[in-house]
Amino acid sequence: MGIYDRAMGQVDDAVLAALRRVSTATAWAHLVRHGIKRPYMMGVKLLSIGEVGSMAGRARTLRYVPLREDLLPYLRESGMENPQRDAIEAVQPGDVFGVDAMGSLDAATMGDILASRIKKRGAAGIVADGCVRDSPFIKRMGIPVYTRSVHPAANTSALLPLEHNGPIQCGGVTVLPGDVLLGDEEGVVVIPPALAGELAAEGPDHEDLEIYIREQIEAGRPISEVYPPTEGVRAEFAARRASAGRQGR
Amino acid sequence: MGIYDRAMGQVDDAVLAALRRVSTATAWAHLVRHGIKRPYMMGVKLLSIGEVGSMAGRARTLRYVPLREDLLPYLRESGMENPQRDAIEAVQPGDVFGVDAMGSLDAATMGDILASRIKKRGAAGIVADGCVRDSPFIKRMGIPVYTRSVHPAANTSALLPLEHNGPIQCGGVTVLPGDVLLGDEEGVVVIPPALAGELAAEGPDHEDLEIYIREQIEAGRPISEVYPPTEGVRAEFAARRASAGRQGR
Amino acid sequence: MGIYDRAMGQVDDAVLAALRRVSTATAWAHLVRHGIKRPYMMGVKLLSIGEVGSMAGRARTLRYVPLREDLLPYLRESGMENPQRDAIEAVQPGDVFGVDAMGSLDAATMGDILASRIKKRGAAGIVADGCVRDSPFIKRMGIPVYTRSVHPAANTSALLPLEHNGPIQCGGVTVLPGDVLLGDEEGVVVIPPALAGELAAEGPDHEDLEIYIREQIEAGRPISEVYPPTEGVRAEFAARRASAGRQGR
Amino acid sequence: MGIYDRAMGQVDDAVLAALRRVSTATAWAHLVRHGIKRPYMMGVKLLSIGEVGSMAGRARTLRYVPLREDLLPYLRESGMENPQRDAIEAVQPGDVFGVDAMGSLDAATMGDILASRIKKRGAAGIVADGCVRDSPFIKRMGIPVYTRSVHPAANTSALLPLEHNGPIQCGGVTVLPGDVLLGDEEGVVVIPPALAGELAAEGPDHEDLEIYIREQIEAGRPISEVYPPTEGVRAEFAARRASAGRQGR
Amino acid sequence: MGIYDRAMGQVDDAVLAALRRVSTATAWAHLVRHGIKRPYMMGVKLLSIGEVGSMAGRARTLRYVPLREDLLPYLRESGMENPQRDAIEAVQPGDVFGVDAMGSLDAATMGDILASRIKKRGAAGIVADGCVRDSPFIKRMGIPVYTRSVHPAANTSALLPLEHNGPIQCGGVTVLPGDVLLGDEEGVVVIPPALAGELAAEGPDHEDLEIYIREQIEAGRPISEVYPPTEGVRAEFAARRASAGRQGR
Amino acid sequence: MGIYDRAMGQVDDAVLAALRRVSTATAWAHLVRHGIKRPYMMGVKLLSIGEVGSMAGRARTLRYVPLREDLLPYLRESGMENPQRDAIEAVQPGDVFGVDAMGSLDAATMGDILASRIKKRGAAGIVADGCVRDSPFIKRMGIPVYTRSVHPAANTSALLPLEHNGPIQCGGVTVLPGDVLLGDEEGVVVIPPALAGELAAEGPDHEDLEIYIREQIEAGRPISEVYPPTEGVRAEFAARRASAGRQGR
Repeated sequence: MGIYDRAMGQVDDAVLAALRRVSTATAWAHLVRHGIKRPYMMGVKLLSIGEVGSMAGRARTLRYVPLREDLLPYLRESGMENPQRDAIEAVQPGDVFGVDAMGSLDAATMGDILASRIKKRGAAGIVADGCVRDSPFIKRMGIPVYTRSVHPAANTSALLPLEHNGPIQCGGVTVLPGDVLLGDEEGVVVIPPALAGELAAEGPDHEDLEIYIREQIEAGRPISEVYPPTEGVRAEFAARRASAGRQGR
Repeated sequence: MGIYDRAMGQVDDAVLAALRRVSTATAWAHLVRHGIKRPYMMGVKLLSIGEVGSMAGRARTLRYVPLREDLLPYLRESGMENPQRDAIEAVQPGDVFGVDAMGSLDAATMGDILASRIKKRGAAGIVADGCVRDSPFIKRMGIPVYTRSVHPAANTSALLPLEHNGPIQCGGVTVLPGDVLLGDEEGVVVIPPALAGELAAEGPDHEDLEIYIREQIEAGRPISEVYPPTEGVRAEFAARRASAGRQGR
Repeated sequence: MGIYDRAMGQVDDAVLAALRRVSTATAWAHLVRHGIKRPYMMGVKLLSIGEVGSMAGRARTLRYVPLREDLLPYLRESGMENPQRDAIEAVQPGDVFGVDAMGSLDAATMGDILASRIKKRGAAGIVADGCVRDSPFIKRMGIPVYTRSVHPAANTSALLPLEHNGPIQCGGVTVLPGDVLLGDEEGVVVIPPALAGELAAEGPDHEDLEIYIREQIEAGRPISEVYPPTEGVRAEFAARRASAGRQGR
Repeated sequence: MGIYDRAMGQVDDAVLAALRRVSTATAWAHLVRHGIKRPYMMGVKLLSIGEVGSMAGRARTLRYVPLREDLLPYLRESGMENPQRDAIEAVQPGDVFGVDAMGSLDAATMGDILASRIKKRGAAGIVADGCVRDSPFIKRMGIPVYTRSVHPAANTSALLPLEHNGPIQCGGVTVLPGDVLLGDEEGVVVIPPALAGELAAEGPDHEDLEIYIREQIEAGRPISEVYPPTEGVRAEFAARRASAGRQGR
Repeated sequence: MGIYDRAMGQVDDAVLAALRRVSTATAWAHLVRHGIKRPYMMGVKLLSIGEVGSMAGRARTLRYVPLREDLLPYLRESGMENPQRDAIEAVQPGDVFGVDAMGSLDAATMGDILASRIKKRGAAGIVADGCVRDSPFIKRMGIPVYTRSVHPAANTSALLPLEHNGPIQCGGVTVLPGDVLLGDEEGVVVIPPALAGELAAEGPDHEDLEIYIREQIEAGRPISEVYPPTEGVRAEFAARRASAGRQGR
Repeated sequence: MGIYDRAMGQVDDAVLAALRRVSTATAWAHLVRHGIKRPYMMGVKLLSIGEVGSMAGRARTLRYVPLREDLLPYLRESGMENPQRDAIEAVQPGDVFGVDAMGSLDAATMGDILASRIKKRGAAGIVADGCVRDSPFIKRMGIPVYTRSVHPAANTSALLPLEHNGPIQCGGVTVLPGDVLLGDEEGVVVIPPALAGELAAEGPDHEDLEIYIREQIEAGRPISEVYPPTEGVRAEFAARRASAGRQGR
């Protein structure tokens, strides 16, 4: 595991703030241009209802393995020092709590109380390649929560917490601690810290350009004229921005 | 089938009323403590939109098998005496209409008219391990309806009604007639009558305690202090209840 | 492919307008009566949120095959003449844009800009046996859009556009250009032009009769009395219509 | 369930002997001609290795439902009178033991000892919509055994025997007790007794004709000349049989 | 479809003969080096039993779409001119008959008689993204046959032949007519004609080198010494070949 | 991960030798009696052909995560020190090489050369929750190899080796280094070292008893008389062993 350690890093809050203005579609395109082909989590969907906004945060990870009942006594003896509790109490503001439960549909990875604690500690969101319980509360909790599904069973009925802040997979994408997890209604993409800064710098402008192009389409211009954007369209866009100030989204 | 007959029973309306205040997560924990490991229906999701509230009712069952066209004439001859019509006209207030269609995605188990009749007869809800048709109406019908999916095809295009009020499976859980089907936004659990009374007695208090704990978490107390609840936390909760009267949920 | 050419046709706008008052459940029954057993697309679900109304339009088709990187240069050379762009720029008012991406969950078939252009050209809806990107926009676009799922990846990361307006499959149903694609909240059915006129003529009345029957059920009449509708019930319905004018839906 | 009772019957041994010379492909065609569209079990594959020959026998059925631990005591009290043991001890020569375990991959429906007893009692084969354990023995047992897969777990770890000789489904096909279960290397089809006699009478000849046609193809004649067989080809075939005696297969 | 026409071609028999000495693993590596990431058909497995050898041939394609009963009369009228019969009678020696049935498990794409004709016309193999019937014969037919599964149903019970020698997909890989379909026990890869020559020239030597390396491993040398092969190992291999003549495989 | 370290251990060769005489069905029953409910790997099947015998060995583990192209340079820099090579060169006689590739069907975890090296180092078998390439060789290699499927792609086209000899999952079962992996034709079960000794001591006798019971069944005794074995049957069995010496299996 150590051989990938140098790939880990921590992006700062300004980068996260900018990334919250970037869609997963734009992030995907950025990552592909940098050689990362499959940064999007498959099957991990937004559970939250109501307005939760976009999610961008530093991954704090928890890894589960399938329950083996002979290992439960060791978990119980570890008390509050077990990997799940360690992970939760280590959450820092701006973290996204990322859980690898191998896509398990057989039990929850957490319930309302643990999720509330994660939120209270300042998490920007929760991403679980598995389920949550007490989902009627969790989906109204006010931070973005992404899961495969819901299940009322407590975690240790089918899962064992194994490790805090090691590498995991979620939805078929490898996540290292500190990676940026970016989420919107379309799902979650994983951004290595080394590629986050450039996306934060360019992404929001790209989103504005896309909106401009879409408005031109809605105004009746054909695709061939505006998309992919020619230099002319980019100039129009720049001109409009200069005159009108930055558009919100 | 007869060997399990003694396990069947009918809970009374007061028990059902209390269970409506209990979440499936709490019910799951109760059942596991009593040795039932898999009481939650997999893949059977709430179809209803809008506020339908929780569901608790006595299972009235209908079993389908795959269509065999050579058997259709016998079904037609049986007219209004067929197992589907029998089941619907036998619905009593407080029943949940439980349908085993083996998870079929190839046809509906009922449409708006039959569903309306089931509601009119007083059903507390509908649970189908299969599909319904006329779902735009059914999902707004005002009672909780749980299904695997929707399909516009009439039942006998792929299914044959076989039996009314025999044992069935729904979502991988065995359901005997009279079992309590408890549903909330998280899904449905099956509660044997013998285990329903204790849950009805203790469950609502447990829900209130959980809410109290969650409030403490939201107020900033760490998990280790309040969850799982110590005697001290239970005493705090009891004291608050004594002073404030019973909390609603 | 030519052997089925004579089955193709184009229904007129009045037929489409009438069909918008017909549910997929009613259309399914009509098609089965005419010998078509599986007209309903499996797994292709309404993505749109908010009120988009029913969809009825003439299929304009686009077929994708899996990406083969050695073929990408030919696509790039074709520029704006590629099958995807051809299909989009050929959209006529009242068309439904039907995309066969073989159910692929690995990339989108289009994003917000192309979808906007399709809408701008007058499309009655979009049906993709695959994904879309920029789905937060597309699902609020105001026309019915049906997909398998969403994915932020651009189409050519996993798919190649192959052909405009040839026969395709969507959700396991064969679609010829010009077929009517009828959609409501329950999903999409495919109606051959030769069978559309009769359904347009009779379907809306059938829907009103169904509503009348449902009202009778809700008023307490048993199923055996009103469903399937006897001559008496049909007479009641006709009488009420005569006195009250046509019911809205 | 009673409404389909009149469809049940028992074919005699001579019919079974003739059917053993008929392929599932030929049987499928026969059943479709008589209106039965889906007589082939999906996902239930031949487990046996070595030469076991074709299978044709009268269905004796056993139905499982998912385990509910609260029902296990009733099963234990029933001792040797439980539905599984009843079914096994009721096997008659020429029966095929048909098990509905709902496709469960979580436990076996039987192991080597019960399978041996079923064989000893004269069963023509075993068909389980589920798994068997001790499969290294069972697959060499010398009678055709069809299953979904294998699993070393005993049945009551995930399944409860519910009923002997009621209607079941296997691989998506309804099986009534007494139905003919016909199996070859391609899988299993279900033949209602009312349709078995005609197939037994005509099927073996049809197989011989197919072989004759195939030989003509192998000799170089084009498909258009011999398939589907013209009157001329049928006459050639009849002539050759007259001169050469009945061909074996 | 026309935009990819220039990618089509026909490799000669000498190339095919050489490719028969190349494994799909080696071919995969070759194609990836040339930028083709996913040339391997998923889920399409060797059905044949006994020694059938490797398969290398030019793709002749047939495309099915899902059955629509209203189109069957047009198929019947077309008689022997339908796309399936056209495709079969057009088979040339060295072709591989490639069938796109969209992975359908609901019916066969062909039976023993059509398969025999395909073999008789000189086909090097059959690849069907779907099923075959009469599989007990077909799997012993003596040419490599790859399918998803088997099913006794005739093709038009669920499928309609649509087109002969157009582009298709098989197992998630696009196949153009004339592409080389290379198969061994591991499955099938698709090789564009433009990349076949180089592989034919270099692949057999590469296989021999791999065998030499494996022998060195079996003789006790560590991986680091021989794999990936150093210049030294390549020299050893060349020396041995020079002294011993070409090794067979 | 450290909290489960005390559960790890190493069984000696005599225990492994005895376990090779125990079926997975017997091992499953032993583990369930000791509270382990799901020790059987789902979906991981024997790939080997020919006589390979049973497998019992100490788990040596390798964990993969999904490929992230930005991490590949770190893997390349690590050269022969990467986790995969480390794991292979650390194999000891009597180890089973256990690979967690998360069930990936998109690439192989190893090919013939690495598998040969694993065998050469004395491995008792290979278990991969994923695929292998060069499977035509590997399945004839002479040691038991269990996989999900086969794929010609090299591992780093979809997977990254992450860790040697940490805890993994295979087929839904947690495997700690040193656990006994026991395999026969039915599949693989995971035995914690603490439970291996008792099974080694009692299992072979249990197998012999089962064979004795099966022989009694084959001789015509009913199940109720011999199974589950009464004291009388156990006495018969003991007597026969005393007179005849230990039976082989």
